[in-house]
Amino acid sequence: MTTLLHIDSSAQLEERSLTRQLTKTFMDAYLGTHASARVIRRDVGQTPPPAITSDFIHAAFTPADQRENWMRERLALSDELVDEVVASDIIVLGAPMYNYGMPAALKAWVDHVARIGRTFSFDLSRGDFPIEPVLSGKTLVVLSARGEFGFAPGGIRAHLNALDPAIGACAHYWGVAQEAIHTIAIEYQEFKDDRHRRSIDDAHQNARALAMKLAANVAAVAA
Amino acid sequence: MTTLLHIDSSAQLEERSLTRQLTKTFMDAYLGTHASARVIRRDVGQTPPPAITSDFIHAAFTPADQRENWMRERLALSDELVDEVVASDIIVLGAPMYNYGMPAALKAWVDHVARIGRTFSFDLSRGDFPIEPVLSGKTLVVLSARGEFGFAPGGIRAHLNALDPAIGACAHYWGVAQEAIHTIAIEYQEFKDDRHRRSIDDAHQNARALAMKLAANVAAVAA
Repeated sequence: MTTLLHIDSSAQLEERSLTRQLTKTFMDAYLGTHASARVIRRDVGQTPPPAITSDFIHAAFTPADQRENWMRERLALSDELVDEVVASDIIVLGAPMYNYGMPAALKAWVDHVARIGRTFSFDLSRGDFPIEPVLSGKTLVVLSARGEFGFAPGGIRAHLNALDPAIGACAHYWGVAQEAIHTIAIEYQEFKDDRHRRSIDDAHQNARALAMKLAANVAAVAA
Repeated sequence: MTTLLHIDSSAQLEERSLTRQLTKTFMDAYLGTHASARVIRRDVGQTPPPAITSDFIHAAFTPADQRENWMRERLALSDELVDEVVASDIIVLGAPMYNYGMPAALKAWVDHVARIGRTFSFDLSRGDFPIEPVLSGKTLVVLSARGEFGFAPGGIRAHLNALDPAIGACAHYWGVAQEAIHTIAIEYQEFKDDRHRRSIDDAHQNARALAMKLAANVAAVAA
């Protein structure tokens, strides 16, 4: 059975959030093809994890068998968020671009999911590359929306895109190889013109096609 | 009179925070040369702004003279953070790299400081580049720390650096031109070796030299 982790991080509610509408299109299309998939829902936009604190860092870097009660409590949300990533095969990430990067709520999720011993291991005997991911084999679907346009590689605003590189740098630690990242982005939101309407239509069509392709792959493997 | 906005965003307290130690070195050196400078202190690491909400966005995009009381309340922290940027000549930003990007607390600050009519203007008659900054003429000093190394342009981890590009993309809207960004970063923190100790020494020396240079410039202009 495939498990999808459906994350939204927009501060907006569904009627105003382009990324929430896009994750919904993806999920509906996926479940339409592969109805028995399990879905884990995490809405960091509506319920943002707090920024990590010095207590959190201290607790996370204390070996699990030496943790005091307050440490376990401090890590409870992080454990839950990591469990959700561990359990998932496909992460469907609604990730709007806010001021050229992630919403703060999404970055807080990223910082809670980076956990030594759970999502990465650290060993200085590996030399200059001591960090390695623990997880592997997952697929990441990034469904984004940008107010302006030209953020894809080679585009006129590619140098301002601090969202996709940030996701790319961390996906490794969610068990996602670079080639398993699929990104679909609505652009031109601030222009509210035909280009924007076309971009919305294209993104929904692409999200639907990707969902059906990924769901069909699972069905083929299971057959 | 010069005004410095001293921001720290590390989750760690000073004895464990390399960036807090580095901003302190910079501030001490600056004030040692230019004692009458005014200092505004903002600690987003210890007191993180919340992630922005749909209410915040609604309030921010309502014209100031049409705002209801709840909107003014919802924007009060943002107004205060923007006022601090407006009042500053030099922004001294302690910005550690967390999971290749900004701490969530710093991103929350960024999202609170991007305010239509205050830090940027929006006008579709400008064509494909409708956004322009309101502020100008400020200097930004980024004092960072990274667990690994090679994040500078051309370095072996440059492609993973989602911190400096994110700051560069937004600095414009804090009134900082690209050439007015000075970045000094401690590296190798996770290796705890001679390279790390050398990196700390270099960074403090460079921070001190930069502070004295910037303070001397002010003194020369004032003379």
